[in-house]
Amino acid sequence: MQAKTPEDSRTIMTDLVLPSETNPLNNLFGGELLARMDRAASIAARRHSRRIVVTASVNHVAFNKAVPLGSVVTVEAAVSRAFKTSMEIFIDVWVEDRESGTRSKANEAIYTFVAVDETGTPVKIPPIEPETDLEKERFAAALRRKQLALVLAGKMKPGDATELKALFVNS
Amino acid sequence: MQAKTPEDSRTIMTDLVLPSETNPLNNLFGGELLARMDRAASIAARRHSRRIVVTASVNHVAFNKAVPLGSVVTVEAAVSRAFKTSMEIFIDVWVEDRESGTRSKANEAIYTFVAVDETGTPVKIPPIEPETDLEKERFAAALRRKQLALVLAGKMKPGDATELKALFVNS
Amino acid sequence: MQAKTPEDSRTIMTDLVLPSETNPLNNLFGGELLARMDRAASIAARRHSRRIVVTASVNHVAFNKAVPLGSVVTVEAAVSRAFKTSMEIFIDVWVEDRESGTRSKANEAIYTFVAVDETGTPVKIPPIEPETDLEKERFAAALRRKQLALVLAGKMKPGDATELKALFVNS
Amino acid sequence: MQAKTPEDSRTIMTDLVLPSETNPLNNLFGGELLARMDRAASIAARRHSRRIVVTASVNHVAFNKAVPLGSVVTVEAAVSRAFKTSMEIFIDVWVEDRESGTRSKANEAIYTFVAVDETGTPVKIPPIEPETDLEKERFAAALRRKQLALVLAGKMKPGDATELKALFVNS
Amino acid sequence: MQAKTPEDSRTIMTDLVLPSETNPLNNLFGGELLARMDRAASIAARRHSRRIVVTASVNHVAFNKAVPLGSVVTVEAAVSRAFKTSMEIFIDVWVEDRESGTRSKANEAIYTFVAVDETGTPVKIPPIEPETDLEKERFAAALRRKQLALVLAGKMKPGDATELKALFVNS
Amino acid sequence: MQAKTPEDSRTIMTDLVLPSETNPLNNLFGGELLARMDRAASIAARRHSRRIVVTASVNHVAFNKAVPLGSVVTVEAAVSRAFKTSMEIFIDVWVEDRESGTRSKANEAIYTFVAVDETGTPVKIPPIEPETDLEKERFAAALRRKQLALVLAGKMKPGDATELKALFVNS
Repeated sequence: MQAKTPEDSRTIMTDLVLPSETNPLNNLFGGELLARMDRAASIAARRHSRRIVVTASVNHVAFNKAVPLGSVVTVEAAVSRAFKTSMEIFIDVWVEDRESGTRSKANEAIYTFVAVDETGTPVKIPPIEPETDLEKERFAAALRRKQLALVLAGKMKPGDATELKALFVNS
Repeated sequence: MQAKTPEDSRTIMTDLVLPSETNPLNNLFGGELLARMDRAASIAARRHSRRIVVTASVNHVAFNKAVPLGSVVTVEAAVSRAFKTSMEIFIDVWVEDRESGTRSKANEAIYTFVAVDETGTPVKIPPIEPETDLEKERFAAALRRKQLALVLAGKMKPGDATELKALFVNS
Repeated sequence: MQAKTPEDSRTIMTDLVLPSETNPLNNLFGGELLARMDRAASIAARRHSRRIVVTASVNHVAFNKAVPLGSVVTVEAAVSRAFKTSMEIFIDVWVEDRESGTRSKANEAIYTFVAVDETGTPVKIPPIEPETDLEKERFAAALRRKQLALVLAGKMKPGDATELKALFVNS
Repeated sequence: MQAKTPEDSRTIMTDLVLPSETNPLNNLFGGELLARMDRAASIAARRHSRRIVVTASVNHVAFNKAVPLGSVVTVEAAVSRAFKTSMEIFIDVWVEDRESGTRSKANEAIYTFVAVDETGTPVKIPPIEPETDLEKERFAAALRRKQLALVLAGKMKPGDATELKALFVNS
Repeated sequence: MQAKTPEDSRTIMTDLVLPSETNPLNNLFGGELLARMDRAASIAARRHSRRIVVTASVNHVAFNKAVPLGSVVTVEAAVSRAFKTSMEIFIDVWVEDRESGTRSKANEAIYTFVAVDETGTPVKIPPIEPETDLEKERFAAALRRKQLALVLAGKMKPGDATELKALFVNS
Repeated sequence: MQAKTPEDSRTIMTDLVLPSETNPLNNLFGGELLARMDRAASIAARRHSRRIVVTASVNHVAFNKAVPLGSVVTVEAAVSRAFKTSMEIFIDVWVEDRESGTRSKANEAIYTFVAVDETGTPVKIPPIEPETDLEKERFAAALRRKQLALVLAGKMKPGDATELKALFVNS
């Protein structure tokens, strides 16, 4: 299969924060943002693989910034690394101030999707070639994250996770 | 403040998988499950703290099992460890087969919430005392997870994360 | 078929009152609570019968207590009596005060469900054996309610509704 | 206050059965119909009282007829009797066959609403004068239903419910 | 096929403006009103044709009047003119003041629907005979609107749109 | 006020067609697409004006292409012309085939928004300078559309609509 670039799967979902999506402080519920990011990430995964895709996992997500009712929120998702049948999708979330127009980073998240056929069986997907510096950095880090996930799931011995080991041993 | 137990915050949310929550394979969207878990976890956090609570982070979540349309899903959330103003909530998700009545584990997830006052400022919360073996095990692991989160966020040096370091050095 | 207990079908649905479910006084719409109770009751009916179930009727429901936006509401449903193909489900609704943690009874309701096969034809369901005093009391009252429903529907003569008749004649 | 007629409050809500409102047999969920009827009834109660209104109770509702996905459903609500601060609303539900255009009765329900001011305190409402035979019949029956509700709630002795007593004693 | 009247397809959809449908000024979102009008119009089109119907176009719609949260909104739709396989539906929107009960016109819109079979192929529909003066006026204007749509879509030469041409030439 | 370009307000909203948004042919309801376009257009209007904006009108919209359940739909909105307090927003809708990845045009629509202050009073907005050929063409046509709207609303005499008149007279 021919390699693709992160740009090929880049997905932009700009939408308002509606009243039905807010918590008692009138900010977007964490759970709603997780659901929006899942939809955007699934579209990016589909654009890369041209297959049905299902959420396999969500990496650690931190909510550092409240997103008030009525905000314009942009969720931007792109495949950061493709493995055999799974893809890591990196998601950036931006919030826009209505008066100044300033866009500020509200969140980052990393989801993993698997491409499947109609019976739900995983299928092979194209490789990816990062182009920009940021894409290359995210591509490299994706391998560390995959090792960490395997270690945490008990599917890889910590000692075999060479990149992770180095991180802790040398510090 | 008087200590509470995980049982004090245990929250059970049993509901159906409705048609509007499914993906093209007719299974529950990952994003919808993330949103349901967020609501259940926020209630557990509120029961422990008796405060307004906001999602601070979501730990790694793996979706190992598809949840078909029409399933009965039980999301069970309880505070696993309380820190100064934040709480880790451990969530178990069960799916029930209609014909046999068998309940099987569909997912696990860990969310962190912060207790805040009406202005959004973090406030102190009661300590927690785990009772059962499972609660004690989750209580202990919560510290490792917190260190890992701090390391990944660049707020703690890997070398200071004593529990994590041991994990990689001795293996 | 082997008898079951009300405990076997007990269903707990704890959830928040969201902004999209409130009336102009900022309290939960009666209609939304009716819909939540229907979902919880249908799960209880399914747990008892292990069949597809459809709502057959809703008994008199009184809304004595307003449920404000942001409340934690627990809907608890269990089969109170099983007839040949239909089940009466008794539902208790509790609201929880965030600050004090006090749970107070907000509502009671009684729904009847019928178990059906894929063509919609009623099918036989297991008998039920109440265990606690409250379960026994609700089990006994269910027969009176069924007679009343039959009388009101013109399917039973008032004079044949022996339990009901006694109630009015002797007072 | 000047009397009104049931016609003054008549409310017609015709809408489709959407995919998100159906059960596993592809029919309208009982709970969704209860919620639609509550909205229609609240508008009728508002038209009669010109006040904020809240659901006080739902009378016995029977679901005799399944309403399939894609159906056109008409919910028709009108005040059937006004008491001091509360109103009984009678609701008829019709389903329309797309091909033949035949409308058939799918349901009947009776809701009671209370008129309140901004603080939630009940306020007086205008009397009602039924005009057609059907309206007069429903007006008369409303008193029996109110007595029955009071007896069931333990707020009236069965012996004082003169109309109800006659029903059982003479049969 | 036998002719029908606009009355035969008249559809009334009265409902509340719910919190999840409002914009930052607490008024009904334009988009929500467009969606409600589409559902009401589709029912009117179905009543005229007794067929599956799909939206073909929406004419110019002006939003002259804000519709506040909690309002009672009545959308009234009826077929104004039938062509071979398509129908023009004229929609009037009314808002009702709770306290005075006054109904005022909030909007007008014109949608066109096409009747189709299960494969999506257009099918013939009955002719229409307007009865009232207003219906006759809307029937006549429908032809001008159709010519205008064809001209704007480049499917009719402006010079062949006799009615439109007269409008501009003689003024 | 400093002029802006259409690019400054360009808004991209990519999302899935969910099961709750489809009609009996399993295609996106026209009304849902109208609502999505309204949200995207309102964001574009807000980006141009940095003000609260409300929908003023929707131009003729044709639905030429069905959008099936599960499709990826991209709604792209940008201000095409700014008047004193109102803006015309041009919207392009694209549908993407999952297997081939081909994007095809599904719709075009034109909405007009007005910028207002907190009391709902219209406020002045910046002028716009189109850059690309397509933007210039849409900018020019916007004036013809505005004249047509004024004529149709009876606020301009056909004879004063110089651009429109020419269109019909010379053909």
